[in-house]
Amino acid sequence: MSVLDDLRRTVSDLHRELVRYELVIWTAGNVSARVPDRDLMVIKPSGVSYDELGPEAMVVTDLHGTLVEGDLAPSSDTAAHAYVYRHMPEVGGVVHTHSPYATAWAARGEPIPCVLTMIADEFGGEIPVGPFALIGDDSIGRGIVETLRTSRSGAVLMRNHGPFTVGKDARAAVKAAVMLEDVARTVHFAHQLGRPDPIEQHHVDRLHARYQNVYGQ
Amino acid sequence: MSVLDDLRRTVSDLHRELVRYELVIWTAGNVSARVPDRDLMVIKPSGVSYDELGPEAMVVTDLHGTLVEGDLAPSSDTAAHAYVYRHMPEVGGVVHTHSPYATAWAARGEPIPCVLTMIADEFGGEIPVGPFALIGDDSIGRGIVETLRTSRSGAVLMRNHGPFTVGKDARAAVKAAVMLEDVARTVHFAHQLGRPDPIEQHHVDRLHARYQNVYGQ
Amino acid sequence: MSVLDDLRRTVSDLHRELVRYELVIWTAGNVSARVPDRDLMVIKPSGVSYDELGPEAMVVTDLHGTLVEGDLAPSSDTAAHAYVYRHMPEVGGVVHTHSPYATAWAARGEPIPCVLTMIADEFGGEIPVGPFALIGDDSIGRGIVETLRTSRSGAVLMRNHGPFTVGKDARAAVKAAVMLEDVARTVHFAHQLGRPDPIEQHHVDRLHARYQNVYGQ
Amino acid sequence: MSVLDDLRRTVSDLHRELVRYELVIWTAGNVSARVPDRDLMVIKPSGVSYDELGPEAMVVTDLHGTLVEGDLAPSSDTAAHAYVYRHMPEVGGVVHTHSPYATAWAARGEPIPCVLTMIADEFGGEIPVGPFALIGDDSIGRGIVETLRTSRSGAVLMRNHGPFTVGKDARAAVKAAVMLEDVARTVHFAHQLGRPDPIEQHHVDRLHARYQNVYGQ
Repeated sequence: MSVLDDLRRTVSDLHRELVRYELVIWTAGNVSARVPDRDLMVIKPSGVSYDELGPEAMVVTDLHGTLVEGDLAPSSDTAAHAYVYRHMPEVGGVVHTHSPYATAWAARGEPIPCVLTMIADEFGGEIPVGPFALIGDDSIGRGIVETLRTSRSGAVLMRNHGPFTVGKDARAAVKAAVMLEDVARTVHFAHQLGRPDPIEQHHVDRLHARYQNVYGQ
Repeated sequence: MSVLDDLRRTVSDLHRELVRYELVIWTAGNVSARVPDRDLMVIKPSGVSYDELGPEAMVVTDLHGTLVEGDLAPSSDTAAHAYVYRHMPEVGGVVHTHSPYATAWAARGEPIPCVLTMIADEFGGEIPVGPFALIGDDSIGRGIVETLRTSRSGAVLMRNHGPFTVGKDARAAVKAAVMLEDVARTVHFAHQLGRPDPIEQHHVDRLHARYQNVYGQ
Repeated sequence: MSVLDDLRRTVSDLHRELVRYELVIWTAGNVSARVPDRDLMVIKPSGVSYDELGPEAMVVTDLHGTLVEGDLAPSSDTAAHAYVYRHMPEVGGVVHTHSPYATAWAARGEPIPCVLTMIADEFGGEIPVGPFALIGDDSIGRGIVETLRTSRSGAVLMRNHGPFTVGKDARAAVKAAVMLEDVARTVHFAHQLGRPDPIEQHHVDRLHARYQNVYGQ
Repeated sequence: MSVLDDLRRTVSDLHRELVRYELVIWTAGNVSARVPDRDLMVIKPSGVSYDELGPEAMVVTDLHGTLVEGDLAPSSDTAAHAYVYRHMPEVGGVVHTHSPYATAWAARGEPIPCVLTMIADEFGGEIPVGPFALIGDDSIGRGIVETLRTSRSGAVLMRNHGPFTVGKDARAAVKAAVMLEDVARTVHFAHQLGRPDPIEQHHVDRLHARYQNVYGQ
């Protein structure tokens, strides 16, 4: 199987994780992956339900969002994904959802404070808010990139809209989307009945360094 | 398969989406579809559980709710669906649920403000509240129609009762019901810890126009 | 199949509805049914997980909770169920859960106000609170019966404990448990951001009468 | 099948309960069991998803966390589990999750008050908070043990981190983790709209004694 076929399958399969963790409804969320060593990306087609997705439905575009391969129109968020790949060469995967707790923080324009070891581990500090931006040009992509550049976080809460996450590959970006919604929810719950103490910065630094270097196999 | 058989299957299948997205419990929600070019509609029978629904259980009535075909009594909400079809010729599908977050807004009689791009996209502005109305005559139908006529929204929150959604066909009305509960929930979460800024009207207009014309395949 | 075998299967199957609607965790909830025309009831065994329940695991006791048939010890809530059957001859089914929203109202000792048409339909008014009572004698059963006798509701919120529901048969009691958690949740959500207007009493009466007489097949 | 093989299967299977009750996401939670009469424990490998777990993936370590059997690195929480087994000989199983409601109480450093009979039954009083502790040495294990020693509870809420539960075997520790999240959620709901009365201490004592001695088969 070619690298591209393999990536179509990976991206298609990863959409199931968005469904499993209830990060998306109907057709409202998407995963993409950069094709290694080529100026191409694989992304979900627009308006297709998750039940009907399969490797063959996935769309290949260049890094300006122009269709290269596939029968369907690419996701309406393609321009934002493409902008991220053009400007963040270290990123291999991008995910966009409207997962409810993360989107509630985004609606208020309030960053998620680093009050849990899981936030320190995965995001290395508070999860930042990006600007309000309209779909249709580079505004969303630019807002994502400018926000992520000022942070260790792989997640950004786009104001009045919802989260975008990035990772070294599509799986890491999906993991960040899952972890983001989990911590957005837990900190929401914590704030409903008080205000937790933030974790001290030197502890955050140590937790983040350890998790990035030691965790897993 | 005849148009009517096809529609029975479509309406039966769409009830599964209500279950999947947890918009209904027990037997408390229903989908109907207008039969194209005929003064008929297909609707769920009353008090039958979603596990036992199939195309053959679906009921056909005229647009005053009188049974035309089927062995079971039609949904107790049939009069409301029928009223909508009689007075809104552009509507091809109607859905009623008691989905919990939308119903909580309905209980307070509070419209859902347009603070998310998803609300602008799908509903074109705030989601309006309809009057308190008793079952048993045209009151509910009239309340739905009068409210929807003053709005771009395909969803209305009937006071102390729950939401009704409409669409060009049954699938579009179910999509609106799913999106409604999702945004009702997210804005509920947002309001629990503050008040998000509404999206400016000219942005709402642009998002709504784009979504209605460009999104999907 | 004998009436008793049939009832064992019915009661066993109905436990699955408690699981499906997430009213119970681990082994913490139970359904019973009165055996028609005999002073017997069928109930869940104590401490058995829902995965391992089947008709043959169900236990038969008399209406004082003494084991009549079955290999396992009956539910630790058997005395409460039995008391209800002895004192409410119109009741054919009893359900006990710790469903989270209903139990939260019970923990505060706060009745659920009749602010939704669904509450008027199914419960005929506010859902009442029963006294704090310890397990081990007739206290819980007595608290249930005394509270339900002052109300049209088939559900009671036992203080600091959780809900009990009754019905003409086990299925009706399970339906009441499902509807109870649904309205407990929706009214909880409504109260988080305000206070809904109660439905006027004459409307409640009319809705309740209609639902009890007209709804279903 | 040897005792060790049997225990690998038990521990592997019990992880499914964490998934079923939504106590964990991605790979972020773990179960371990002490090997009876040997200074060994069976634990989840680090960073492996729950779909890919099976008996053969489970790891055996000594009670200082040194790998004894298995191809994969043990959970990054192994040191904490091992510390508990070394210092609490009555404990046969340990579970760690970041279940959202319990973790929200942990984030605020607030014990869960004993306002439900289910809390009295299972935990014998309020559920205590343990200190903030960094991963990497014995700090977490020491915090767990010191906190549990002052309480009848088999659950501790580690500050800014999440819950650990213990039991006489792995199944009992998983049960405690499931019950903990359930009561953390219900009391959270109760507190959102008021403050429930705590159960009086002599009632708590009686409920706890009864449940520990009488419940189940």
